[in-house]
Amino acid sequence: MIRFKSLSFLSFARSFSSSAQTSMATAKIIDGTALAKSVREEVAQRIKTLQAQHPRFRPQLAIIQAGSRPDSSVYVRMKSKAAEEVGIKFMHVPLPEEAPVDDIVQVVKKLNSDPTVSGILVQLPLGPHISADGERTVTEAVSPEKDVDGFHAYNIGHLSSRASNPLFNPCTPAGVIKLLDHAGVTIAGSHTVVLGRSDIVGNPVSAMLRKRDATVTQCHSRTRDLPQIVSEADILVSAIGQARFVKGEWLKPGAVVIDVGTNYIPDATKKSGQRLVGDVDFDSAASVASQITPVPGGVGPMTVAMLMENTLQAAERQWEETRARKVKPLKLDIKEKVPSDIEIAMAQTPKPVAELASEIGLLPQEVESYGQYKAKVELSVLDRLGHRKDGKYILVSGITPTPLGEGKSTTTIGLAQALGAHMGRLAFACVRQPSQGPTFGIKGGAAGGGYSQVIPMDEFNLHLTGDIHAVTAANNLLAAALDARMFHEATQSDKALYNRLVPTVKGKRAFAPLMFKH
Amino acid sequence: MIRFKSLSFLSFARSFSSSAQTSMATAKIIDGTALAKSVREEVAQRIKTLQAQHPRFRPQLAIIQAGSRPDSSVYVRMKSKAAEEVGIKFMHVPLPEEAPVDDIVQVVKKLNSDPTVSGILVQLPLGPHISADGERTVTEAVSPEKDVDGFHAYNIGHLSSRASNPLFNPCTPAGVIKLLDHAGVTIAGSHTVVLGRSDIVGNPVSAMLRKRDATVTQCHSRTRDLPQIVSEADILVSAIGQARFVKGEWLKPGAVVIDVGTNYIPDATKKSGQRLVGDVDFDSAASVASQITPVPGGVGPMTVAMLMENTLQAAERQWEETRARKVKPLKLDIKEKVPSDIEIAMAQTPKPVAELASEIGLLPQEVESYGQYKAKVELSVLDRLGHRKDGKYILVSGITPTPLGEGKSTTTIGLAQALGAHMGRLAFACVRQPSQGPTFGIKGGAAGGGYSQVIPMDEFNLHLTGDIHAVTAANNLLAAALDARMFHEATQSDKALYNRLVPTVKGKRAFAPLMFKH
Repeated sequence: MIRFKSLSFLSFARSFSSSAQTSMATAKIIDGTALAKSVREEVAQRIKTLQAQHPRFRPQLAIIQAGSRPDSSVYVRMKSKAAEEVGIKFMHVPLPEEAPVDDIVQVVKKLNSDPTVSGILVQLPLGPHISADGERTVTEAVSPEKDVDGFHAYNIGHLSSRASNPLFNPCTPAGVIKLLDHAGVTIAGSHTVVLGRSDIVGNPVSAMLRKRDATVTQCHSRTRDLPQIVSEADILVSAIGQARFVKGEWLKPGAVVIDVGTNYIPDATKKSGQRLVGDVDFDSAASVASQITPVPGGVGPMTVAMLMENTLQAAERQWEETRARKVKPLKLDIKEKVPSDIEIAMAQTPKPVAELASEIGLLPQEVESYGQYKAKVELSVLDRLGHRKDGKYILVSGITPTPLGEGKSTTTIGLAQALGAHMGRLAFACVRQPSQGPTFGIKGGAAGGGYSQVIPMDEFNLHLTGDIHAVTAANNLLAAALDARMFHEATQSDKALYNRLVPTVKGKRAFAPLMFKH
Repeated sequence: MIRFKSLSFLSFARSFSSSAQTSMATAKIIDGTALAKSVREEVAQRIKTLQAQHPRFRPQLAIIQAGSRPDSSVYVRMKSKAAEEVGIKFMHVPLPEEAPVDDIVQVVKKLNSDPTVSGILVQLPLGPHISADGERTVTEAVSPEKDVDGFHAYNIGHLSSRASNPLFNPCTPAGVIKLLDHAGVTIAGSHTVVLGRSDIVGNPVSAMLRKRDATVTQCHSRTRDLPQIVSEADILVSAIGQARFVKGEWLKPGAVVIDVGTNYIPDATKKSGQRLVGDVDFDSAASVASQITPVPGGVGPMTVAMLMENTLQAAERQWEETRARKVKPLKLDIKEKVPSDIEIAMAQTPKPVAELASEIGLLPQEVESYGQYKAKVELSVLDRLGHRKDGKYILVSGITPTPLGEGKSTTTIGLAQALGAHMGRLAFACVRQPSQGPTFGIKGGAAGGGYSQVIPMDEFNLHLTGDIHAVTAANNLLAAALDARMFHEATQSDKALYNRLVPTVKGKRAFAPLMFKH
């Protein structure tokens, strides 16, 4: 809200009145509806082209909506319609209005790690019980890579820095820049005045204009001499939500006006009794400005169009990353006088298994870590990657160990190292757990040897995750249960067991057959 | 760099020459050296006060320096000296100049999880082989909670947003604001002109001034009519690195000038042959401005002082968080008709163990996760918390199970629930792994029962992490090795083994005693 207190209007009016009177030409209208349509068509075309090459390429936009505020529902429908039209799959995630922050964050996290979701948007506002801090917790739970709204602090940080670019530009500011470019306006070197300092428009659009080499003056409710400042603007961007606040007389003749405001004012001639107007008094401004966006039909339609562009961009980036996947092998420090197996194994710090999993393209939820260097893989990965071409399977079968002890395991690991680290192919060594004690002395430990070993060798030799033991334990448990049952039924009555129980209150006995609890 | 091409100086000079001539008063000097000293003294005093209450409170600043550029070494020494003076422990982490990005990131991560380190600073520039992207990767590896430089995208994002505050303000911009406040300058409502758009000063100081309700115009190399814009400034902040670029004639009479520039110019009268000057032509500016910072002795000393303030703030926040630790118990969905143990166990989704570990104050490196819901704790935690007062130990000893089967385990878990979830005390239930199979049928599974169970119950009953198995496996391994050795030595010579070996090249035999490899 701009409160407009001290107008030093007099001096300003004097210096500019002459030029304002002489230029009565009507400004060119910047048509946001048409531009938004062409942006959406470009997005649709690009998706079609990519899908022709890669049939599995499928951008998806997920919107989380808590409750069912009518205005929110309208926005969600608009986005859903636009998405469907351009070929972006749409996922609506409705939550109860009273959903607490923690629950919404859980939903966001699930979408973060869902590889079919390209972009995530949390429809604000959330329920009335959620504070501004809570709202921020939710929007910042969105992974920056899927933050198609561009509202995550990480992306705003990059947007606001000179030395870097954000993963996404916020949609409305991006629409403003696109409108200026489309209208052929030179941003670099211009003096641009931005009215408003919201996190949705004013602040990010100022940062973007600065990046495009404009000299930016940002005004707000505490700004003095606003008409004076506005009068210096080659480009004016207004985002303050005050109906027809900016007057044509304030403008520099020939200025370009981008009106982000959407304000409803009473209008008896309309069926709804109201009418949509911008922050700028259109009629007076159009007679001074060189170009101007109308409301409606200016910035409004651009927001959704840019959201589609961001979602496509997210999907493309994620697609590229999946294809560009690369395992970075650890460096081997190979010594001329080869140390013992255990020395070699201990000299190497394994790569954290979570990092390795990410390098080979496993999703976090598909990996169950056991310590920092071991993990199990969910079998669901077989379904997710079912469409992929099968890899080549190399079986290292029975082999007589060489004089230096190289047998099946060493050959298997060595082959994986040669194919993976040296030839750059994605290679996995598949070995069983070491056969260990009972056969020790007859053959090796099944962990390979020399520079071709399974590490962490010590843990591998002690059966890693304890699974084999869990199977034997389950087997023993079952056997003991059967034994106990057979023994008791064959030789005992239940009576002796119940006798152990103490009487309960009221002199009655409680009968709880302990051994058959469940 | 401001390139200064099109001066529309004539019209500007006309309108302001009269006032510039009339105000020949000399500006008040804003003494940064004195203010910086008082900031550092306040920090020192606050640390003393906190240490009087909490003797273990000890802020520490870590600086990573790759290589030994003389200018970097000077800065590091300045910071180290300031830290020591105020009572902040200083850790210098020197790395070789050729250290690759990955290595530096590893060092940063280690410092992130070191609870004795309050703040981390990476002295830039890094080695010449590291690109701007690499440098960003390193600075963004610093945890935002320890980013006392305030350069992390996450903190810049919050700094640049209206709705939030960063964990840290960057030091030089924070110094600028502090100087203005100290000088009694009203920032709110002022028209402030910032020269420069660097990520270290120009951009963040603009965001901070905007937050303080200034109307900010940010200028840079592409700005036209710079003197005209400067002439409108109530406050001028210059950070462009151009010696004496801003002239006194440009200034509005009575303006406040903050000169962030530090530029060396030749000066034959100095022993070093050079002299430090600011971006502003001090002599001419001082006769127009109402207040002005000198160079040196203005903004310069504030940067290090604010770094001390940020480090203290980090330490205090981390200290508070450690003390405010709280376990959030999961909600129990208690049914009137109590379901079976297995139904109750399966109905609850355990809290991810990493989250639980963080709630009870374990550091990530002290916890080794086994799947998502189980973990081992490093014994080093005993040393780290050795100074803490011991907790109370409650032993649930031999007990005759109740008719409903409640024995030692159920009582133990129930007690921990009562003390923890109901009374809000930090309570841990310590139980051994279930005794399982051999005694099944005689007693329960040692996982408790009803709503007082150890979960995940199924995994717990299968010996969780396989440790017991690892011990038996190690024992078997050793036994087999001894057996094999005794058998071979008592009944066999080594000859038969060697006979299995194939001849090597040059007609000689290779002798590799397979079974005694190590």
